[in-house]
Amino acid sequence: MTQTTKKPFNLTIQTPGRGYYLITDRIEQAVAEALPGVEAGLLHVFLRHSSVGLTINENADPTVREDFKRFEEHLVPRDFPFHLNYEGDDDMPANIKSSLLGCQLTILVSEGRLALGIILRPIADQV
Amino acid sequence: MTQTTKKPFNLTIQTPGRGYYLITDRIEQAVAEALPGVEAGLLHVFLRHSSVGLTINENADPTVREDFKRFEEHLVPRDFPFHLNYEGDDDMPANIKSSLLGCQLTILVSEGRLALGIILRPIADQV
Amino acid sequence: MTQTTKKPFNLTIQTPGRGYYLITDRIEQAVAEALPGVEAGLLHVFLRHSSVGLTINENADPTVREDFKRFEEHLVPRDFPFHLNYEGDDDMPANIKSSLLGCQLTILVSEGRLALGIILRPIADQV
Repeated sequence: MTQTTKKPFNLTIQTPGRGYYLITDRIEQAVAEALPGVEAGLLHVFLRHSSVGLTINENADPTVREDFKRFEEHLVPRDFPFHLNYEGDDDMPANIKSSLLGCQLTILVSEGRLALGIILRPIADQV
Repeated sequence: MTQTTKKPFNLTIQTPGRGYYLITDRIEQAVAEALPGVEAGLLHVFLRHSSVGLTINENADPTVREDFKRFEEHLVPRDFPFHLNYEGDDDMPANIKSSLLGCQLTILVSEGRLALGIILRPIADQV
Repeated sequence: MTQTTKKPFNLTIQTPGRGYYLITDRIEQAVAEALPGVEAGLLHVFLRHSSVGLTINENADPTVREDFKRFEEHLVPRDFPFHLNYEGDDDMPANIKSSLLGCQLTILVSEGRLALGIILRPIADQV
Protein backbone atom coordinates (compact mmCIF):
# COMPACT_ATOMS: atom_id res chain seq x y z
CA MET A 1 0.00 0.00 0.00
CA THR A 2 1.41 3.35 -1.01
CA GLN A 3 0.91 6.35 1.19
CA THR A 4 1.32 9.94 0.11
CA THR A 5 0.71 13.21 1.85
CA LYS A 6 -0.50 15.92 -0.45
CA LYS A 7 0.19 19.63 -0.26
CA PRO A 8 -2.36 21.80 1.52
CA PHE A 9 -4.22 24.28 -0.63
CA ASN A 10 -6.42 27.30 -0.02
CA LEU A 11 -10.00 27.45 -1.16
CA THR A 12 -11.73 30.85 -1.02
CA ILE A 13 -15.50 30.83 -0.75
CA GLN A 14 -17.38 34.11 -0.90
CA THR A 15 -20.88 34.36 0.53
CA PRO A 16 -23.46 37.18 0.44
CA GLY A 17 -24.11 37.08 4.20
CA ARG A 18 -25.23 34.94 7.11
CA GLY A 19 -26.60 31.63 5.95
CA TYR A 20 -25.86 27.99 5.29
CA TYR A 21 -23.97 27.33 2.10
CA LEU A 22 -23.35 24.04 0.35
CA ILE A 23 -19.65 23.64 -0.39
CA THR A 24 -19.35 19.93 -1.10
CA ASP A 25 -19.10 20.43 -4.87
CA ARG A 26 -16.51 23.17 -4.43
CA ILE A 27 -14.41 20.97 -2.20
CA GLU A 28 -14.65 17.96 -4.48
CA GLN A 29 -13.74 20.10 -7.49
CA ALA A 30 -10.81 21.59 -5.60
CA VAL A 31 -9.63 18.13 -4.55
CA ALA A 32 -9.80 16.97 -8.17
CA GLU A 33 -7.87 20.01 -9.38
CA ALA A 34 -5.33 20.51 -6.64
CA LEU A 35 -4.73 16.89 -5.72
CA PRO A 36 -5.17 14.89 -8.92
CA GLY A 37 -4.88 11.18 -8.52
CA VAL A 38 -6.19 10.98 -4.98
CA GLU A 39 -8.24 7.83 -5.03
CA ALA A 40 -8.72 7.31 -1.33
CA GLY A 41 -7.61 8.98 1.84
CA LEU A 42 -8.46 11.52 4.48
CA LEU A 43 -9.17 15.15 3.62
CA HIS A 44 -8.78 17.68 6.39
CA VAL A 45 -10.89 20.82 5.93
CA PHE A 46 -10.01 23.73 8.20
CA LEU A 47 -11.80 27.12 8.22
CA ARG A 48 -9.45 30.05 8.77
CA HIS A 49 -12.17 32.42 9.98
CA SER A 50 -13.47 32.81 13.53
CA SER A 51 -17.14 33.37 12.76
CA VAL A 52 -17.85 30.51 10.39
CA GLY A 53 -18.77 26.92 11.16
CA LEU A 54 -18.52 23.72 9.19
CA THR A 55 -20.92 20.80 9.39
CA ILE A 56 -22.17 17.85 7.39
CA ASN A 57 -25.85 17.44 6.60
CA GLU A 58 -27.86 15.38 4.15
CA ASN A 59 -29.59 18.59 2.91
CA ALA A 60 -32.83 16.74 2.18
CA ASP A 61 -34.30 19.95 0.78
CA PRO A 62 -33.72 23.74 1.09
CA THR A 63 -35.94 24.03 4.16
CA VAL A 64 -33.24 22.26 6.16
CA ARG A 65 -30.88 25.18 5.77
CA GLU A 66 -33.70 27.61 6.50
CA ASP A 67 -34.56 25.67 9.67
CA PHE A 68 -30.91 25.70 10.77
CA LYS A 69 -30.77 29.45 10.21
CA ARG A 70 -33.94 30.12 12.20
CA PHE A 71 -33.05 27.75 15.00
CA GLU A 72 -29.58 29.19 15.53
CA GLU A 73 -31.21 32.58 16.21
CA HIS A 74 -33.23 30.85 18.91
CA LEU A 75 -30.26 28.93 20.32
CA VAL A 76 -27.89 31.91 20.47
CA PRO A 77 -30.16 34.98 20.58
CA ARG A 78 -28.57 38.22 19.54
CA ASP A 79 -30.41 40.08 22.31
CA PHE A 80 -28.45 38.19 25.00
CA PRO A 81 -26.56 40.82 27.04
CA PHE A 82 -23.15 40.24 25.46
CA HIS A 83 -20.30 42.65 26.16
CA LEU A 84 -18.67 42.31 22.75
CA ASN A 85 -20.50 44.05 19.93
CA TYR A 86 -17.79 45.82 17.90
CA GLU A 87 -19.15 44.33 14.74
CA GLY A 88 -22.84 44.48 15.63
CA ASP A 89 -25.27 42.37 17.63
CA ASP A 90 -24.30 39.22 15.76
CA ASP A 91 -20.62 39.50 16.73
CA MET A 92 -20.66 37.22 19.79
CA PRO A 93 -23.47 35.01 18.43
CA ALA A 94 -21.24 34.31 15.41
CA ASN A 95 -18.30 33.43 17.67
CA ILE A 96 -20.42 31.10 19.78
CA LYS A 97 -22.16 29.41 16.86
CA SER A 98 -18.78 28.84 15.22
CA SER A 99 -17.55 27.11 18.38
CA LEU A 100 -20.70 24.99 18.67
CA LEU A 101 -20.54 23.75 15.08
CA GLY A 102 -16.78 23.57 14.93
CA CYS A 103 -14.37 24.85 12.31
CA GLN A 104 -12.78 21.71 10.98
CA LEU A 105 -13.59 18.23 9.72
CA THR A 106 -11.56 15.26 8.60
CA ILE A 107 -13.48 13.49 5.85
CA LEU A 108 -12.94 10.19 4.08
CA VAL A 109 -12.21 10.46 0.37
CA SER A 110 -13.07 7.46 -1.75
CA GLU A 111 -12.56 7.30 -5.51
CA GLY A 112 -12.08 11.05 -5.68
CA ARG A 113 -15.30 11.93 -3.86
CA LEU A 114 -16.13 12.69 -0.24
CA ALA A 115 -17.45 9.54 1.43
CA LEU A 116 -20.30 11.28 3.22
CA GLY A 117 -23.27 9.72 4.94
CA ILE A 118 -25.72 9.48 2.12
CA ILE A 119 -23.35 7.88 -0.35
CA LEU A 120 -24.37 4.27 -0.25
CA ARG A 121 -21.47 2.68 -2.10
CA PRO A 122 -18.92 1.15 0.25
CA ILE A 123 -15.65 2.79 1.11
CA ALA A 124 -12.89 1.82 -1.29
CA ASP A 125 -10.91 -1.05 0.08
CA GLN A 126 -7.64 0.73 0.47
CA VAL A 127 -5.97 3.97 1.42
CA MET B 1 10.20 5.11 13.40
CA THR B 2 7.98 3.19 11.03
CA GLN B 3 4.77 4.70 9.81
CA THR B 4 1.93 2.79 8.21
CA THR B 5 -1.49 3.83 7.04
CA LYS B 6 -4.11 1.16 7.49
CA LYS B 7 -7.09 0.43 5.31
CA PRO B 8 -10.41 2.00 6.31
CA PHE B 9 -13.11 -0.37 7.41
CA ASN B 10 -16.85 -0.19 7.99
CA LEU B 11 -18.42 -0.86 11.36
CA THR B 12 -22.21 -1.25 11.47
CA ILE B 13 -23.92 -0.48 14.77
CA GLN B 14 -27.63 -1.10 15.12
CA THR B 15 -29.62 0.70 17.80
CA PRO B 16 -33.24 0.34 18.95
CA GLY B 17 -33.99 4.06 18.73
CA ARG B 18 -33.01 7.49 19.96
CA GLY B 19 -30.54 7.31 22.79
CA TYR B 20 -26.90 7.40 23.78
CA TYR B 21 -25.00 4.21 23.07
CA LEU B 22 -21.57 3.18 24.26
CA ILE B 23 -19.46 2.06 21.29
CA THR B 24 -15.94 2.17 22.70
CA ASP B 25 -15.74 -1.62 23.09
CA ARG B 26 -17.09 -2.16 19.57
CA ILE B 27 -14.51 0.21 18.14
CA GLU B 28 -11.63 -1.28 20.07
CA GLN B 29 -12.68 -4.80 19.06
CA ALA B 30 -12.95 -3.70 15.43
CA VAL B 31 -9.53 -2.08 15.58
CA ALA B 32 -8.05 -5.27 16.99
CA GLU B 33 -9.72 -7.40 14.30
CA ALA B 34 -9.40 -5.21 11.24
CA LEU B 35 -6.09 -3.58 11.99
CA PRO B 36 -4.06 -6.14 13.91
CA GLY B 37 -0.69 -4.96 15.06
CA VAL B 38 -1.61 -1.32 15.54
CA GLU B 39 0.28 -0.37 18.67
CA ALA B 40 -0.01 3.37 18.50
CA GLY B 41 -1.45 5.93 16.15
CA LEU B 42 -4.47 7.98 15.28
CA LEU B 43 -7.87 6.42 14.62
CA HIS B 44 -10.33 8.48 12.63
CA VAL B 45 -13.99 7.60 13.31
CA PHE B 46 -16.50 9.01 10.85
CA LEU B 47 -20.28 8.50 11.04
CA ARG B 48 -21.90 8.07 7.64
CA HIS B 49 -25.38 9.06 8.82
CA SER B 50 -26.82 12.57 9.03
CA SER B 51 -28.85 12.19 12.21
CA VAL B 52 -26.29 10.67 14.54
CA GLY B 53 -23.64 12.33 16.65
CA LEU B 54 -20.41 11.12 18.19
CA THR B 55 -18.93 12.30 21.46
CA ILE B 56 -16.59 11.20 24.22
CA ASN B 57 -17.75 11.04 27.80
CA GLU B 58 -16.47 9.40 30.97
CA ASN B 59 -19.90 7.73 31.46
CA ALA B 60 -19.59 7.87 35.23
CA ASP B 61 -22.90 5.99 35.53
CA PRO B 62 -26.03 5.35 33.40
CA THR B 63 -27.71 8.57 34.56
CA VAL B 64 -25.23 10.53 32.47
CA ARG B 65 -26.71 9.19 29.26
CA GLU B 66 -30.22 9.71 30.61
CA ASP B 67 -29.36 13.32 31.45
CA PHE B 68 -27.91 13.88 27.98
CA LYS B 69 -31.08 12.48 26.44
CA ARG B 70 -33.37 14.68 28.51
CA PHE B 71 -31.28 17.79 28.11
CA GLU B 72 -31.07 17.51 24.33
CA GLU B 73 -34.89 17.61 24.23
CA HIS B 74 -34.67 20.89 26.14
CA LEU B 75 -31.87 22.29 23.97
CA VAL B 76 -33.46 21.42 20.64
CA PRO B 77 -37.18 21.14 21.36
CA ARG B 78 -39.21 19.18 18.84
CA ASP B 79 -42.07 21.70 19.10
CA PHE B 80 -39.91 24.44 17.56
CA PRO B 81 -41.68 25.56 14.34
CA PHE B 82 -39.43 23.69 11.93
CA HIS B 83 -40.40 23.44 8.25
CA LEU B 84 -38.85 20.01 7.71
CA ASN B 85 -40.79 17.14 9.23
CA TYR B 86 -40.87 14.43 6.56
CA GLU B 87 -39.71 11.90 9.08
CA GLY B 88 -41.61 13.22 12.08
CA ASP B 89 -41.12 15.96 14.65
CA ASP B 90 -37.63 14.74 15.50
CA ASP B 91 -36.40 15.12 11.91
CA MET B 92 -34.84 18.58 12.20
CA PRO B 93 -33.93 18.17 15.89
CA ALA B 94 -31.89 15.10 14.88
CA ASN B 95 -30.14 17.07 12.14
CA ILE B 96 -29.30 19.93 14.50
CA LYS B 97 -28.18 17.73 17.38
CA SER B 98 -25.92 15.83 14.99
CA SER B 99 -24.31 19.10 13.91
CA LEU B 100 -23.87 20.28 17.50
CA LEU B 101 -22.19 17.07 18.66
CA GLY B 102 -20.33 16.46 15.43
CA CYS B 103 -20.02 13.33 13.35
CA GLN B 104 -16.33 12.52 13.51
CA LEU B 105 -13.45 12.20 15.94
CA THR B 106 -9.77 11.53 15.59
CA ILE B 107 -8.64 9.53 18.61
CA LEU B 108 -5.24 8.50 19.88
CA VAL B 109 -4.62 4.77 19.93
CA SER B 110 -2.04 3.53 22.39
CA GLU B 111 -1.12 -0.14 22.82
CA GLY B 112 -4.19 -1.21 20.90
CA ARG B 113 -6.67 0.76 22.97
CA LEU B 114 -8.25 4.19 22.62
CA ALA B 115 -6.28 6.68 24.73
CA LEU B 116 -9.35 8.40 26.15
CA GLY B 117 -9.55 10.80 29.06
CA ILE B 118 -10.02 8.46 31.93
CA ILE B 119 -7.19 6.10 31.04
CA LEU B 120 -4.47 7.14 33.41
CA ARG B 121 -1.51 5.32 31.88
CA PRO B 122 0.65 7.60 29.77
CA ILE B 123 0.52 7.61 26.02
CA ALA B 124 2.97 5.15 24.49
CA ASP B 125 6.19 6.90 23.67
CA GLN B 126 6.04 6.56 19.95
CA VAL B 127 3.81 6.48 16.94
CA MET C 1 8.14 15.52 -0.54
CA THR C 2 9.21 13.93 2.71
CA GLN C 3 6.62 12.84 5.21
CA THR C 4 7.28 12.12 8.84
CA THR C 5 5.02 11.23 11.72
CA LYS C 6 6.17 12.63 15.02
CA LYS C 7 5.81 11.13 18.46
CA PRO C 8 2.80 12.16 20.53
CA PHE C 9 3.55 14.11 23.67
CA ASN C 10 1.64 15.14 26.77
CA LEU C 11 1.04 18.76 27.71
CA THR C 12 -0.33 19.46 31.18
CA ILE C 13 -2.25 22.68 31.66
CA GLN C 14 -3.40 23.68 35.13
CA THR C 15 -6.27 26.10 35.57
CA PRO C 16 -7.73 27.79 38.66
CA GLY C 17 -11.33 26.86 37.84
CA ARG C 18 -14.09 27.13 35.31
CA GLY C 19 -13.24 29.55 32.54
CA TYR C 20 -11.84 30.00 29.07
CA TYR C 21 -8.07 29.78 28.87
CA LEU C 22 -5.80 30.69 25.99
CA ILE C 23 -3.44 27.81 25.24
CA THR C 24 -2.18 28.67 21.75
CA ASP C 25 1.20 29.87 23.03
CA ARG C 26 1.60 26.79 25.22
CA ILE C 27 0.85 24.51 22.30
CA GLU C 28 3.17 26.34 19.92
CA GLN C 29 5.96 26.29 22.51
CA ALA C 30 5.39 22.58 23.12
CA VAL C 31 5.45 21.90 19.39
CA ALA C 32 8.73 23.77 19.06
CA GLU C 33 10.26 21.88 22.01
CA ALA C 34 8.91 18.37 21.52
CA LEU C 35 8.83 18.28 17.74
CA PRO C 36 11.74 20.44 16.57
CA GLY C 37 12.01 20.84 12.84
CA VAL C 38 8.32 20.62 12.07
CA GLU C 39 7.87 23.19 9.35
CA ALA C 40 4.45 22.21 8.10
CA GLY C 41 1.90 19.55 8.83
CA LEU C 42 -1.14 18.65 10.85
CA LEU C 43 -1.17 18.82 14.65
CA HIS C 44 -3.80 16.77 16.42
CA VAL C 45 -4.75 18.12 19.87
CA PHE C 46 -6.76 15.76 22.05
CA LEU C 47 -8.03 16.57 25.56
CA ARG C 48 -7.86 13.62 27.92
CA HIS C 49 -10.46 14.99 30.34
CA SER C 50 -14.24 14.60 30.13
CA SER C 51 -15.26 18.05 31.38
CA VAL C 52 -13.10 20.28 29.22
CA GLY C 53 -13.72 21.57 25.73
CA LEU C 54 -11.42 22.90 23.05
CA THR C 55 -12.26 25.60 20.54
CA ILE C 56 -10.66 28.19 18.30
CA ASN C 57 -11.55 31.85 18.60
CA GLU C 58 -9.98 35.11 17.47
CA ASN C 59 -10.10 36.40 21.08
CA ALA C 60 -10.65 39.98 19.94
CA ASP C 61 -10.49 41.11 23.56
CA PRO C 62 -11.02 39.63 27.06
CA THR C 63 -14.77 40.25 26.97
CA VAL C 64 -15.10 37.45 24.42
CA ARG C 65 -14.10 34.86 26.99
CA GLU C 66 -16.33 36.53 29.58
CA ASP C 67 -19.25 36.41 27.14
CA PHE C 68 -18.61 32.73 26.40
CA LYS C 69 -18.56 32.00 30.13
CA ARG C 70 -21.83 33.83 30.78
CA PHE C 71 -23.58 32.44 27.74
CA GLU C 72 -22.70 28.82 28.52
CA GLU C 73 -24.48 29.22 31.87
CA HIS C 74 -27.55 30.30 29.91
CA LEU C 75 -27.21 27.52 27.32
CA VAL C 76 -26.69 24.70 29.83
CA PRO C 77 -28.21 25.97 33.06
CA ARG C 78 -27.02 24.25 36.22
CA ASP C 79 -30.55 24.32 37.66
CA PHE C 80 -31.80 21.93 34.96
CA PRO C 81 -33.11 18.82 36.77
CA PHE C 82 -30.12 16.59 36.08
CA HIS C 83 -29.79 13.25 37.85
CA LEU C 84 -26.00 13.28 38.04
CA ASN C 85 -24.56 15.68 40.59
CA TYR C 86 -21.82 13.68 42.37
CA GLU C 87 -19.41 16.54 41.80
CA GLY C 88 -21.85 19.40 42.27
CA ASP C 89 -24.43 21.21 40.17
CA ASP C 90 -21.91 21.81 37.39
CA ASP C 91 -21.18 18.10 36.91
CA MET C 92 -23.59 17.40 34.06
CA PRO C 93 -23.34 20.92 32.62
CA ALA C 94 -19.58 20.37 32.30
CA ASN C 95 -20.14 17.04 30.54
CA ILE C 96 -22.63 18.56 28.12
CA LYS C 97 -20.60 21.68 27.38
CA SER C 98 -17.57 19.50 26.70
CA SER C 99 -19.59 17.50 24.16
CA LEU C 100 -20.96 20.64 22.50
CA LEU C 101 -17.54 22.26 22.06
CA GLY C 102 -15.72 19.03 21.39
CA CYS C 103 -12.50 17.68 22.86
CA GLN C 104 -10.18 17.53 19.87
CA LEU C 105 -8.96 19.54 16.92
CA THR C 106 -6.67 18.87 14.00
CA ILE C 107 -4.84 22.08 13.17
CA LEU C 108 -2.61 23.08 10.30
CA VAL C 109 0.97 23.89 11.27
CA SER C 110 2.86 26.20 8.95
CA GLU C 111 6.46 27.32 9.54
CA GLY C 112 6.31 26.11 13.13
CA ARG C 113 3.16 28.01 14.06
CA LEU C 114 -0.52 27.10 14.13
CA ALA C 115 -2.17 28.30 10.91
CA LEU C 116 -5.24 29.70 12.61
CA GLY C 117 -7.88 31.97 11.17
CA ILE C 118 -6.45 35.36 11.89
CA ILE C 119 -2.99 34.66 10.51
CA LEU C 120 -3.09 36.35 7.16
CA ARG C 121 0.05 34.91 5.59
CA PRO C 122 -0.71 32.03 3.24
CA ILE C 123 -0.21 28.43 4.20
CA ALA C 124 3.29 27.23 3.34
CA ASP C 125 3.30 25.56 0.00
CA GLN C 126 4.19 22.08 1.12
CA VAL C 127 3.64 19.51 3.78
